[in-house]
Amino acid sequence: MNTAAVRIVLVNTTHSGNIGGVARAMKNMGLCQLYLVAPRQFPAEEANWRAASAGDVLDTAVVTETLQDAIADCHFVVGTSARGRRIPWPTVNPRQCAAQVAARTAGGAQVAIVFGREDRGLTNDELQACNLHLHIPTHEDYTSLNLAMAVQIVAYELRMLSVEGELPASEYADWDAPFCSVEDMQRYFEHLEETLVQVGFLNPVAPRQLMARLRRLYSRIPLDEMEMSILRGILTETQKAIAGPDSGAK
Amino acid sequence: MNTAAVRIVLVNTTHSGNIGGVARAMKNMGLCQLYLVAPRQFPAEEANWRAASAGDVLDTAVVTETLQDAIADCHFVVGTSARGRRIPWPTVNPRQCAAQVAARTAGGAQVAIVFGREDRGLTNDELQACNLHLHIPTHEDYTSLNLAMAVQIVAYELRMLSVEGELPASEYADWDAPFCSVEDMQRYFEHLEETLVQVGFLNPVAPRQLMARLRRLYSRIPLDEMEMSILRGILTETQKAIAGPDSGAK
Repeated sequence: MNTAAVRIVLVNTTHSGNIGGVARAMKNMGLCQLYLVAPRQFPAEEANWRAASAGDVLDTAVVTETLQDAIADCHFVVGTSARGRRIPWPTVNPRQCAAQVAARTAGGAQVAIVFGREDRGLTNDELQACNLHLHIPTHEDYTSLNLAMAVQIVAYELRMLSVEGELPASEYADWDAPFCSVEDMQRYFEHLEETLVQVGFLNPVAPRQLMARLRRLYSRIPLDEMEMSILRGILTETQKAIAGPDSGAK
Repeated sequence: MNTAAVRIVLVNTTHSGNIGGVARAMKNMGLCQLYLVAPRQFPAEEANWRAASAGDVLDTAVVTETLQDAIADCHFVVGTSARGRRIPWPTVNPRQCAAQVAARTAGGAQVAIVFGREDRGLTNDELQACNLHLHIPTHEDYTSLNLAMAVQIVAYELRMLSVEGELPASEYADWDAPFCSVEDMQRYFEHLEETLVQVGFLNPVAPRQLMARLRRLYSRIPLDEMEMSILRGILTETQKAIAGPDSGAK
């Protein structure tokens, strides 16, 4: 994913704080190309403050008079949209958008993703200047996303595509000890059963489903060797403690 | 996806504006349950302003003194984390997190997703109170996400799962007993620690990482109430066996 070829375009932004929020959201996800079409105020104190450590994105932002100026050199333009425009346009969600953007940048294209005004988005004319429409599937109770939040979601999906393959596929990817084998587990269950009999918790004459339930319990997670040595250590110390100082006695 | 069973927990939030931003991000994605652990200021003007039309999420927000109070009745707790903790914990990205949360809520669980302080996240102790860690794959040039942005991304992934209708079938859908709450688990860990000291396995003067490792181990399994009563029974019988027939002795 060539994130350097992805441009975020904000049209007629009213609140300069949002411009800063967008800059931070972009940099957090590895984007850097920001275009501002006739913002109400820029540069602005509030933008710098909200950008936090993404001031460089603001410093290199390009201000244009018109949307046309901001996208003229692009090869593929995505416009964010609420649903239900008069003429239906090809419309994707942020995940599908990321896939299409990745495909286009891989082919060498410069891509623009265009976000509209805080209060009324993009006009029909602006949307018709786009190749693709993007709709974020908000809940019907409250469909109006903050501008910087919308950019954050779209940028996050691009980022997920960039790091796919680098991201740990498993929640156990960075574990600090090797995992137990079936044989280790088998030895543990034998030791556990023996100890439970000595403790008086398990009656060997009427064991019921106790060991089955304990097997099911410990089989549901991958136990590592350090954890196993703790579990075995507890059993050994328990056996010693029961035997007492004058060991040998039951 | 039962979004009503998903709770967003913010720990020690400093900027009230972020609380409002979180409320809006939640409502945009169909979440409504917000818990605030000792926020610096709440209610707050700035929170109301940033929440925009999500004032109802703020109105029903629950303020607690401690993290434990905010998660006691939950069955599955996810903590947001930067990478590289001393003891690795099962760690997922937002997409994997959404899949696990969906599976747990499908099984009837109340789930909490916990976000830390703006400047330094969650403490190690807080993270060790979680079943799962969540890491948002930010770009290495700027890894510090705004709090409301982090919630937005996580809530968006839950929303995508809701609208995709691709509920992962839960491996726990047909379980035969209700699952333990955070409070049940807490009582178990206290009983376990007490017993391990009596057994002589845990030296209270030099406990090292033992309890952290045991917490991590048992936090990885959704334990049901029957299993818990077995585990507690083992501890109780062990304590009796150590005390011996002439009980009262060590």
